[in-house]
Amino acid sequence: MKEPIDTLLTAAMVVTMNAEFELIADGGLAVRGSYIVAVGPADELRGRFAPAESHHYPHHIIMPGLVNAHTHLAMTLMRGLNDDLRLDVWLGYLMPIERQFVDEAWVRLGTKLGCAELIRSGVTSFADMYYFEEAVAEETAAIGLRALLGQTVLMFPAPDASTYEDALARCRRFIEGWNGHELIQPAVSPHAWYTATPELLRACVALAKEYDVPLHTHIAETEYEVQNCTHLHDMNVTEWNDEHGILGTKLLAAHCVHITRPEMKLLQEAGAGVAHCPTSNLKLGSGIAAVAEMQEMGLKVGIGTDSTASNNDLDMFEELRLAALLAKVKRNDPTDLPARDTLALSTMGGARALHMGDKTGSLEVGKHADLIVVSTGGAHNWPQFNHHPEAVYSRLVYATKSGDVQDVMCHGRWLMRDRTLLTVDEAEVTAATVPIAQK
Amino acid sequence: MKEPIDTLLTAAMVVTMNAEFELIADGGLAVRGSYIVAVGPADELRGRFAPAESHHYPHHIIMPGLVNAHTHLAMTLMRGLNDDLRLDVWLGYLMPIERQFVDEAWVRLGTKLGCAELIRSGVTSFADMYYFEEAVAEETAAIGLRALLGQTVLMFPAPDASTYEDALARCRRFIEGWNGHELIQPAVSPHAWYTATPELLRACVALAKEYDVPLHTHIAETEYEVQNCTHLHDMNVTEWNDEHGILGTKLLAAHCVHITRPEMKLLQEAGAGVAHCPTSNLKLGSGIAAVAEMQEMGLKVGIGTDSTASNNDLDMFEELRLAALLAKVKRNDPTDLPARDTLALSTMGGARALHMGDKTGSLEVGKHADLIVVSTGGAHNWPQFNHHPEAVYSRLVYATKSGDVQDVMCHGRWLMRDRTLLTVDEAEVTAATVPIAQK
Repeated sequence: MKEPIDTLLTAAMVVTMNAEFELIADGGLAVRGSYIVAVGPADELRGRFAPAESHHYPHHIIMPGLVNAHTHLAMTLMRGLNDDLRLDVWLGYLMPIERQFVDEAWVRLGTKLGCAELIRSGVTSFADMYYFEEAVAEETAAIGLRALLGQTVLMFPAPDASTYEDALARCRRFIEGWNGHELIQPAVSPHAWYTATPELLRACVALAKEYDVPLHTHIAETEYEVQNCTHLHDMNVTEWNDEHGILGTKLLAAHCVHITRPEMKLLQEAGAGVAHCPTSNLKLGSGIAAVAEMQEMGLKVGIGTDSTASNNDLDMFEELRLAALLAKVKRNDPTDLPARDTLALSTMGGARALHMGDKTGSLEVGKHADLIVVSTGGAHNWPQFNHHPEAVYSRLVYATKSGDVQDVMCHGRWLMRDRTLLTVDEAEVTAATVPIAQK
Repeated sequence: MKEPIDTLLTAAMVVTMNAEFELIADGGLAVRGSYIVAVGPADELRGRFAPAESHHYPHHIIMPGLVNAHTHLAMTLMRGLNDDLRLDVWLGYLMPIERQFVDEAWVRLGTKLGCAELIRSGVTSFADMYYFEEAVAEETAAIGLRALLGQTVLMFPAPDASTYEDALARCRRFIEGWNGHELIQPAVSPHAWYTATPELLRACVALAKEYDVPLHTHIAETEYEVQNCTHLHDMNVTEWNDEHGILGTKLLAAHCVHITRPEMKLLQEAGAGVAHCPTSNLKLGSGIAAVAEMQEMGLKVGIGTDSTASNNDLDMFEELRLAALLAKVKRNDPTDLPARDTLALSTMGGARALHMGDKTGSLEVGKHADLIVVSTGGAHNWPQFNHHPEAVYSRLVYATKSGDVQDVMCHGRWLMRDRTLLTVDEAEVTAATVPIAQK
């Protein structure tokens, strides 16, 4: 007798992104509850399972959902507000806006808009850092995406806390409220060493360790930051963070544009995740991170969009393509970060960087069903040299667009079918941004 | 009595890209035959004209069609065939394939596929360089795009000519057959100085001058090329080209990644067009061109995708976004190449670089109706801070996707309506690539 399952999905190609980079032509997968219970040839699965629901995609690829390793989702409401500016001018413009306008309702709306865009570009997991993170958690969980959510702790007054003690207390409440949730992983987010006191950094580390939750911070985004750190503390940024225990946590370090080889080694030994944000690093003139070198050294590297205030979108297909391209000019070597490796960073790499590699990032039995269905029908996807083993990765990285993502499932739940969002009312959300833009 | 016209188009916003960068909220334009006969407020145009056909776009932008300043369109059939390779390996792989497979039928199919993709990404004009260019011309003219088409002249045997004398004779026939066509501008294309003899370069210059047609060639794509030129000729690449008269033609120089400031001055004084190809230059590890500096010096700079063999798509919205981002890291200055300037390079700049600035590139009376209608409805386009004057450019450059292009008109003829191509059978063309990929 056939085993009952909830959903059977079959397609022209399954890209597993497992350790062997297995590709299954005419493949499929079986989903029960939130879990993948089988991955294999379509015929075999059809013979074995009795699905309540089944879908066949004759001209499509089923692959893991993408992981956006660093963003500030609510800032989606600031898209296009301050472009083509130096980082200091940009921050000088942005921070007063945040103090004036950012409240819980604003964060909720920004989160909903951001989630809509993430789903449309094939993302099923993301790492966030912002204020009112419990509002981000509620909206994200309702919409159905998986996320590492870092509640910001700053030494300055913030939109959701007037002192850093308030921010820490808020962060603790957030962790207690959400730790253990099936989709939401709460985290501690000291914004960066330069917006923190040593005492604040140590308190964040203690909090992260007390609850065994990740710590999400910015490291070495600009050369100026590195110079300041060296000047003030006679240490580079990673060493200064290490000095205060940051590397002893489940760390997710965003940017790492200006780190030395010894710093990479420190991060690798600490098992830290690194979020590479190529668009943001270009747009703010920060530089080009040595992502191929980090990958060679075995760091857990993921790719992130950063916020739309420095991007200006959340399109992970654009982002991973840019990561592949930029890596080649960093060392003048076009063989750096080939397509398959780039797709690995955007899926399994990102999951590992977020310390959720056991849950998501590849299509394997025992992981959650976080997957996307990508159409290969558009003119930009032809011809298809499918007898070349690398061709499918090459197509996904260098030619596929976010608009090719047709269906999205996260944790066994459909979030998008045929380009229609099922868990967020896009028209309502975009309409609600109109008064925001008129302020 | 109202003046009869063929088409009246009105929209929430008209982005003219004229010299004053005029934006017209609730604007429109009137088309008679292939020409724009009026641009202005929608109400005024409605009062003045009696259109045979009219369309109102309440949530859209009407703007000039994009100009793809450098590609090899037929090579679209080689998409994804040889990625993540060094340029020498890449060429060593590609050239035998070309000699084996490229014939007139292959070029026709590649041109049709490429045109489909160009139209879908909002391109109305492009500059090409390849073999069997008369086949490219026939297909392009039938599909209805505007193009500068360069017939390649090489010192080696080519798919369409066994000697360079044959290539020159073929190029002459091509020019005689097409010069003066309303859409097609034939051109002479010595591939590059390093695939030419001095005699060949001079013969190409003479031919271009005899018919007063442009000359389209590659200049200073890689550092290796520059070193070779200096070593062999004790001159940099622009000087060597100038020595043989190339700068005395209506020149379109692709790449210019490794040129000095004096070379930029030479090109500027020659009135040369430069095609900046950021994706291709990254993907092959060639480097980052100094596009902001060239623009400041008054060069006619456009943006091009290059072929899909080094991109791997023809998406000009991706390309112009990358141009804006890369310029900022070139001089570590995020104020370089702001959004408005980037859009100018992709429209009017490209038209000037192709020596067709009097015909296309902006929405102005007397120019041809080469325009696109861009939807602003997608989640990635919100919020819309329209009271900030630069916001519309910022949105178009940093957030808009090729998938937002809804309608495309070239030379007064609709090529796409509601994302459906009207002049090329996409299903037939993509199906025809299947046997190509199995060779």
